Amino acid sequence: MDKKTAASGSGPRRLPLRVALLGFGTVGAAVARILVERPELADRLQLTHVFNRDVARKRAAWVPSTVTWTENVDDLFASLPDIVVEVIGGVDPVGGWVRRALERGASVVTANKVLLAAQGPDLLQLAAANHTQIRFEAAVGGGVPLIHGVREGLAGDNLRRVAGILNGTSNYVLSRMAGGGDETMASVLDDARRLGYAEADPSADIDGDDAGSKLVVLAGIAFHRHLRLVDIPRRSIRPITAADFRYARSLGCTIRQISLVEAKGDAFHAFVGPALVPAGSSFGRNEGANNVVTLFGQYGGESSFSGAGAGGPATAVAVVSDLLALAQRQAGEGGGEQWLPGRVVPPPARPYYVRFVVRDRPGILAFIAAALARQSINLDAVLQEPGYPKDALPFVITVEACEESALLKALAEIGAADFDVEPPLALPMLLGV
Amino acid sequence: MDKKTAASGSGPRRLPLRVALLGFGTVGAAVARILVERPELADRLQLTHVFNRDVARKRAAWVPSTVTWTENVDDLFASLPDIVVEVIGGVDPVGGWVRRALERGASVVTANKVLLAAQGPDLLQLAAANHTQIRFEAAVGGGVPLIHGVREGLAGDNLRRVAGILNGTSNYVLSRMAGGGDETMASVLDDARRLGYAEADPSADIDGDDAGSKLVVLAGIAFHRHLRLVDIPRRSIRPITAADFRYARSLGCTIRQISLVEAKGDAFHAFVGPALVPAGSSFGRNEGANNVVTLFGQYGGESSFSGAGAGGPATAVAVVSDLLALAQRQAGEGGGEQWLPGRVVPPPARPYYVRFVVRDRPGILAFIAAALARQSINLDAVLQEPGYPKDALPFVITVEACEESALLKALAEIGAADFDVEPPLALPMLLGV
Repeated sequence: MDKKTAASGSGPRRLPLRVALLGFGTVGAAVARILVERPELADRLQLTHVFNRDVARKRAAWVPSTVTWTENVDDLFASLPDIVVEVIGGVDPVGGWVRRALERGASVVTANKVLLAAQGPDLLQLAAANHTQIRFEAAVGGGVPLIHGVREGLAGDNLRRVAGILNGTSNYVLSRMAGGGDETMASVLDDARRLGYAEADPSADIDGDDAGSKLVVLAGIAFHRHLRLVDIPRRSIRPITAADFRYARSLGCTIRQISLVEAKGDAFHAFVGPALVPAGSSFGRNEGANNVVTLFGQYGGESSFSGAGAGGPATAVAVVSDLLALAQRQAGEGGGEQWLPGRVVPPPARPYYVRFVVRDRPGILAFIAAALARQSINLDAVLQEPGYPKDALPFVITVEACEESALLKALAEIGAADFDVEPPLALPMLLGV
Repeated sequence: MDKKTAASGSGPRRLPLRVALLGFGTVGAAVARILVERPELADRLQLTHVFNRDVARKRAAWVPSTVTWTENVDDLFASLPDIVVEVIGGVDPVGGWVRRALERGASVVTANKVLLAAQGPDLLQLAAANHTQIRFEAAVGGGVPLIHGVREGLAGDNLRRVAGILNGTSNYVLSRMAGGGDETMASVLDDARRLGYAEADPSADIDGDDAGSKLVVLAGIAFHRHLRLVDIPRRSIRPITAADFRYARSLGCTIRQISLVEAKGDAFHAFVGPALVPAGSSFGRNEGANNVVTLFGQYGGESSFSGAGAGGPATAVAVVSDLLALAQRQAGEGGGEQWLPGRVVPPPARPYYVRFVVRDRPGILAFIAAALARQSINLDAVLQEPGYPKDALPFVITVEACEESALLKALAEIGAADFDVEPPLALPMLLGV
């Protein structure tokens, strides 16, 4: 490629592109390491600046002395970088810095799903208006090349459904619990923290916000629509117990945190939370912190992607892949992608697994069956395994496909009865995934 | 995007791009159908010409009357298409037409792995010299967006290994036979033909040439090196019997046609053929005509892709995705990809499964063990299941990791003995896939 100067307008870009790094945590350091360790990239990408708090502590000896370290973000912008890599996370103050970069015509590469879920459409528009790009392969699925695969490799299809396991922490916890034994979620979470699979406060992971943000980004890529995170029902995996895995197993299923978005006319069904999936499905077999995403298209049918969902090196690969894509593009070539507002509608009728914990006495099942019947919900199976105490007896019913709103009405009535030890837990049964 | 004229040089392309279709078979018709059925593509892509033999028979009523049908390839070139889609296959005469398109500055989108395996480096150079592109998402993995995913999504990694199930016919046959029963390969192949999973002559599929060509393309994408198909050892799945699946099962394994290329210094190990893989691995669990590909990178670890490996609609999605990528590119922007010559070296030491069929008599195992010992090969296990006739007794040994050349020497000696009913069958045990 020519090295002629082309600060703006079309034509080849001046290479190598000057790359400034916002953040030198696990991912940022791993990005720098790949750029340093792969000298064949030097003709296209040159790391010039690293911004972080407490540079004195962060500065790494293996980073070339040509790189400027700074605690002042203005220094970084004053260097007129071609690309700003944002690997700090969060909306403030990082969102402002991303805007500042785009407004100055720099490209942005980010792993920040929270920022994209909140402001994706605006940032894409800002990039287009400034003839530059914001790229975010690292925002979903870590090292799994989902964004490129979906945006470009499946562009020819009319995608209808995206379903995935998007949060490694939840999958680690649930697949550990599925392994048998009577581990509680609290004890598995403790282990996960010790092994680095869970943060001190794992709420965003296990309550579904992390997966929800990623689902917003995936929906943007797959459907060019922006679903608001607040509109996507997110259910926590916290209530899941060892008994649930035993009952799921007797149904040929297991339990995973599933993220799902499906086109329904010009709107979308969307869901994040624990669900029953067939034990033999790609979701049911997904172990540890791995991610897996399945897409269904009108023409191509089903495609799946899987791999390490997180971790510094895997995420850094995604960042560097975006950097290389930018080095291939011509100056002034925007991404052209826009996310129009998308609407979330209630889930389709589907079967559910409902687990009760009761003080056992005669008449409970009749009470439950009557409450369901009043909502025209058909009971499918009743499962009760031996060996549980009578004063806190977990048992399960499955119901045929029904509206969630009707089920919730019935469960509100059942949950108010005096036999419940804890609120009934309803999990969708996603048997077609 | 601006609609200004830019027949050559840089700057935005004149849209819609004029697309000419070479071939209106299953894939060609499916490409046309997507272009017709997805009106939102019309501002970027316009189908103008269809070339096929016997147009009178092929002409489809649902194709718009603005499309010109021709049996004369010169007509197609005279129309000055922006993109030529080649979905006929084979090297002659199609290779000449692809060159002609590239020389005239048209882009080419092709599903032709045989042509790419034979002439990939030349065609990529020709495209670069003419500031145009040849794209081939459809050449490997049908609807699985492997090429985009690997070339762009994993560009940031230093890839070390690509392993996959790349041929749907072989996988259909082997996964059917793995299902148990005593079906012979011939009877399963008959079924596969009836169901459209196998051609009248399935040699290219089951003997490994089809997967080998795809492996050459994948190695080009992953390593930017061109391995010659003739240098890649290809083994047929024909000798596999129901007994092999039974023995494999007792080793916790099953048998699949595996394609494998792995960087070894500046050269490559490569292999296509039946191998033992763990029954629980993504390869062992891959059923029917599905494809699955796993890549291993220095930084990102393992990523997997899977989906429908063939079929008109899935392959057409890949073609249309390439068309859309071309519509996004600026005029004069070549792909810039080159495949340098790559060298194939003998496989690494690895464990093998060896199945014999013998007329049973005392001393056979001693003979085999002695022949192996002379090559310093350690016997690992001996498996002999009951229920087979004494005059054609299949039994299995496994050997510890050894050089293939040494094993073949030992097997040549053993195969010359009078107790063999058929030649010994050696399958690599790929336990780390």
